[in-house]
Amino acid sequence: MTNEWYEFKLGKWAETVDVRDFIQNNYTVYEGDDSFLAGATENTKKLWEQVMDLTKQEREAGGVLDMDTKVVSTITSHGAGYLNKDLETIVGFQTDKPFKRSLQPYGGIRMAENACSENGYTVDPEVSKIFTEYRKTHNQGVFDAYTDEMRLARKSAIITGLPDAYGRGRIIGDYRRVALYGIDRLVADKKDQLKSCLTTMTEDTIRLREELSEQIRALGELKKLGEIYGYDISKPAKNAQEAIQWLYFGYLAAVKEQNGAAMSLGRTSTFLDIYIERDLRNGVITEEQAQEYIDHFIMKLRLVKFARTPEYNQLFSGDPTWVTESIGGVGLDGRPLVTKNSFRYLHTLDNLGTAPEPNMTVLWSTQLPKNFKEYCAKMSIKSSSIQYENDDMMRITHGDDYAIACCVSSMRVGKEMQFFGARANLAKCLLYAINGGVDEVLKVQVGPKFRPVEGDYLDYDDVMAKYDDMMEWLAELYVNTLNVIHYMHDKYSYEKIQMALHDREVKRYFATGIAGLSVVADSLSAIKYAKVKAVRDENGIVTDYEVEGDFPKYGNNDDRVDQIAVDLVHNFMNKIRKHQTYRNGVPTMSILTITSNVVYGKKTGNTPDGRKKGEPLAPGANPMHRRDTHGAAASLASVAKLPFKDAQDGISNTFSIVPGALGKDDVLFAGDLDLDRL
Amino acid sequence: MTNEWYEFKLGKWAETVDVRDFIQNNYTVYEGDDSFLAGATENTKKLWEQVMDLTKQEREAGGVLDMDTKVVSTITSHGAGYLNKDLETIVGFQTDKPFKRSLQPYGGIRMAENACSENGYTVDPEVSKIFTEYRKTHNQGVFDAYTDEMRLARKSAIITGLPDAYGRGRIIGDYRRVALYGIDRLVADKKDQLKSCLTTMTEDTIRLREELSEQIRALGELKKLGEIYGYDISKPAKNAQEAIQWLYFGYLAAVKEQNGAAMSLGRTSTFLDIYIERDLRNGVITEEQAQEYIDHFIMKLRLVKFARTPEYNQLFSGDPTWVTESIGGVGLDGRPLVTKNSFRYLHTLDNLGTAPEPNMTVLWSTQLPKNFKEYCAKMSIKSSSIQYENDDMMRITHGDDYAIACCVSSMRVGKEMQFFGARANLAKCLLYAINGGVDEVLKVQVGPKFRPVEGDYLDYDDVMAKYDDMMEWLAELYVNTLNVIHYMHDKYSYEKIQMALHDREVKRYFATGIAGLSVVADSLSAIKYAKVKAVRDENGIVTDYEVEGDFPKYGNNDDRVDQIAVDLVHNFMNKIRKHQTYRNGVPTMSILTITSNVVYGKKTGNTPDGRKKGEPLAPGANPMHRRDTHGAAASLASVAKLPFKDAQDGISNTFSIVPGALGKDDVLFAGDLDLDRL
Repeated sequence: MTNEWYEFKLGKWAETVDVRDFIQNNYTVYEGDDSFLAGATENTKKLWEQVMDLTKQEREAGGVLDMDTKVVSTITSHGAGYLNKDLETIVGFQTDKPFKRSLQPYGGIRMAENACSENGYTVDPEVSKIFTEYRKTHNQGVFDAYTDEMRLARKSAIITGLPDAYGRGRIIGDYRRVALYGIDRLVADKKDQLKSCLTTMTEDTIRLREELSEQIRALGELKKLGEIYGYDISKPAKNAQEAIQWLYFGYLAAVKEQNGAAMSLGRTSTFLDIYIERDLRNGVITEEQAQEYIDHFIMKLRLVKFARTPEYNQLFSGDPTWVTESIGGVGLDGRPLVTKNSFRYLHTLDNLGTAPEPNMTVLWSTQLPKNFKEYCAKMSIKSSSIQYENDDMMRITHGDDYAIACCVSSMRVGKEMQFFGARANLAKCLLYAINGGVDEVLKVQVGPKFRPVEGDYLDYDDVMAKYDDMMEWLAELYVNTLNVIHYMHDKYSYEKIQMALHDREVKRYFATGIAGLSVVADSLSAIKYAKVKAVRDENGIVTDYEVEGDFPKYGNNDDRVDQIAVDLVHNFMNKIRKHQTYRNGVPTMSILTITSNVVYGKKTGNTPDGRKKGEPLAPGANPMHRRDTHGAAASLASVAKLPFKDAQDGISNTFSIVPGALGKDDVLFAGDLDLDRL
Repeated sequence: MTNEWYEFKLGKWAETVDVRDFIQNNYTVYEGDDSFLAGATENTKKLWEQVMDLTKQEREAGGVLDMDTKVVSTITSHGAGYLNKDLETIVGFQTDKPFKRSLQPYGGIRMAENACSENGYTVDPEVSKIFTEYRKTHNQGVFDAYTDEMRLARKSAIITGLPDAYGRGRIIGDYRRVALYGIDRLVADKKDQLKSCLTTMTEDTIRLREELSEQIRALGELKKLGEIYGYDISKPAKNAQEAIQWLYFGYLAAVKEQNGAAMSLGRTSTFLDIYIERDLRNGVITEEQAQEYIDHFIMKLRLVKFARTPEYNQLFSGDPTWVTESIGGVGLDGRPLVTKNSFRYLHTLDNLGTAPEPNMTVLWSTQLPKNFKEYCAKMSIKSSSIQYENDDMMRITHGDDYAIACCVSSMRVGKEMQFFGARANLAKCLLYAINGGVDEVLKVQVGPKFRPVEGDYLDYDDVMAKYDDMMEWLAELYVNTLNVIHYMHDKYSYEKIQMALHDREVKRYFATGIAGLSVVADSLSAIKYAKVKAVRDENGIVTDYEVEGDFPKYGNNDDRVDQIAVDLVHNFMNKIRKHQTYRNGVPTMSILTITSNVVYGKKTGNTPDGRKKGEPLAPGANPMHRRDTHGAAASLASVAKLPFKDAQDGISNTFSIVPGALGKDDVLFAGDLDLDRL
């Protein structure tokens, strides 16, 4: 037995890499309240002041304080960087100093150049030359393989937000493994995987073998990263501080290597609690020190920064890093996975103030301890910084050691990953059905030259039949486009350290997404239940609609229209399922456009529901703004009808409510209502 | 019709890229003798003197006169280089001056570094860094995917000479297309191919689309290469000089991009003759000028040089470039493809003196014009610089527009290519069969742990059964190893300009090869017809053999042993055929170790035929040295029994004969005997 594991209850995890088993054997449920929590230490306050000051400087500098223009970011590319070495208990930055954004050209050299130039920096010409002449990038690979149709569909934005000009992200390394096992053991495990690979050299096997070799090399680099900061992480962490530090090095390596659209952290709080409990039990640390470690760790996560382009920021309404940490949830044996450390994580919102990152996500269950529910509600009200997701639903398909990548994508940590696929704009697809594939904004043929709708008034059966055909086309094009993207991402920008912290056999979700659900539901409802007149421009393209009469609107718990939305989700998902996916990824779908719905709306013409050209689509699965007129419960009920099995990558509903509407005993009620179905 | 094509007879070739059709419609058979040929011009003599002087300097400098250590070779990496710009009618060097070897790290940075350091040069550290940290190479990719077994089989040399540390070569771009169509037309053609690609994005399709995009980019670079030398090659060549120059630019681009084991030229002489004939007919040039162009062109081909490692030179007994040019042959319509230009090419051996490169290869047929046969024989005797291959045999499977890559590999120009696969050492495999997979030199287990031979004397049936099993293992391992190599070559060192000068649908030969055929045939014959005693070392490994009595030896037209060789070729090829090949390459086999047989022999222990450890194997399909005691005809008859259908990549027989043995009328007879079956 390894010395570093003293007092841990052994189990399968000691023989094979199995963090869940370690947690299940060793964690201590906490059912108490928040009274044990400690405030910020003087050191924490000093460091945070420094961060605040740098943040101010960054804002004053126009959003970026410093950028690397010469050193290409790799796991070991930089020397150690500190805020204040003497005060920091958890160390490590992406570059050699805080707030300096790293140079990551593997996704695309022009993106890297634009990200710099937009902020007044210039990439070193030598680097530009290397990544133009010698080292091809993901972006170039994708565009080499795209068809004209794909380019056009991308330009018209019927498929949009594709990760072809930025990193796909949505992969969570099991960073806990670094702490529990140390690098040497993980390398030995990967070498064993390499040895036990199939030996018939199909292309799949060759790729897997090469990837495993890359992973082993990346683990070696991760060990060096530890050395750069003066730590030997070849062996398991032997106390809480080391556990946090080892885990963070794993994550840091990932963000040094990849600028993904979502670089999520996983599910670390209860894992780390086991180390903290042991240290507390043995008098090695106090609660103050434990909280200080967590505060410093969270501080580091808040300072993850990437160099990004204006287009990216527009799409994502800022430059979120989606350092999502999944907290709480309930185990398969019924024990809540809530520990004191679940509280400590949320408590950083007090000690360091509120912040959108890390994206603290409570895996909500009716079975969570009452005290934790109350604390969550309290901190939500106080900080508006907590996200909630339905553990009772996800646990069924994903077990009790999954985490959320980005905002809603669930995956078993270290066992599953996602090929992120952005969205197909179903609202625009409806307009294509009406116009026989002609884009209503660009006024060019984008889709297939099917027969357009004829006559003055839209007929429901006619439109539905045409819409079905057009979705068939869109689904195929969409899957093909994503196949290109993920093939090239693997080829030119493989996430080697993140995948090194996965099992050999990884389940890959092939994530698709849709935008415009409620617009389409309402449009089809209008066509069915009211009269919709088509208004054509001089070229005969339908560019506007006149709605005569009223019609049921999605968001009012009215089955007449809600069923249209339900059918739509089911049908489009089934069309996606028809096509061969890269690496046999398991197709999923999300209804999830928390911010990008604005951009999508801008590129979508007038719709038959009365929405005007350029107006935002509703976010995610939301009803259209102000059309849900029957109260909060009815609105939520409509959303709740959407079939999870056809939108397994997640359904988001952005929901604001005035506190008064929730009654007097607001704390608990807020929790239960708000979280039943997200 | 394009102006540049004046007086050409149009045909399919004018509508689609089809060089063969152009040749068939336009070439002029020449049945006359060599009396029309012109000597070297003064300019040619001056230039060649300069070359001789530089050659002397190179020799004195230890084999390499100058090397690039900083500029990575690409199609457009260098400015123009000349011997003497005023005198050269055909221009272009791999770097900015003659005899300066270029830096080609894509195959492997360590090889590039070794090639430099062995000659006293040092690769620029920045280049080493780029090709270590940012740009992975073919070599690294291969070793990332190799299994331990593959590494061991490579180390023991049961599989050897693999193109994992050097470029595979054996791909012939149809360089004639550059002259006939110009770059713009070729780009348009490739864009059309890209448009007409399958749109279902399987990995095969994605790869093909990316490759086509790479090809289009490479053609753009080729156009720039022309500009660097002051030529606009976007349009077709309009006269003979341009045709030669355009064609050479195509080839030059290939050798600037790839350091392949064989960078063959194709079948260009009769194609170019059409341009020369037109110019002669119109009084644009004289025969002297025509010969000068050809002399200068051949001079350039002789100056193709690569930076290579000592291991490479050892394997290939020097650093051959295999600029193979296929001359003559007969058309499917029965007309010989011999033109005046066939003579001019061979005449360079007079004008410039003899040389191994370009590797002038006459496609021999009984139907070649008598005058040409006589001229070939005369030039062979004079120069010993001509290779002959059997057109009558290859025409059946390859038509009349194939060419030879390297020494014997035939492929339709622009329509077929080869994945070069070096060799499996069947002699060593026999020793593995006897020793149960233990290597007789390394004394470690390399093959599977089958039961070794027991007892003092070898039993034929027992050894054969064991040999069959061991070959089964070897064939599978061999194909798997080659799959890794070619996957990685495509991934990290794709031959984009060469493939740009191919059709979209390329037939890929998956070439394997065997070494040690005659050693095995004789060994098995000894076991069968004499008595062979096994001598074991202290570990029980059979390391020597005592042969008691005589036995039939391969090379004497004795079916008892010749049939063993025939069966062996057939059986091993069938075992190769059992396995899935990369990109569904069509498996072929060669019996072809013209030089590397020496290296293979060094690594092979004593064999049951009495050959001693370390002694060379016989080259190719040759009988073992001095064992063919029944005369030349019998020796050749043995070789001729080998089944071509099981060794379609070629069978080589290195055959020396004293002139007197061929009779008095030596010229014609030499031709017919020597060439009947190579």
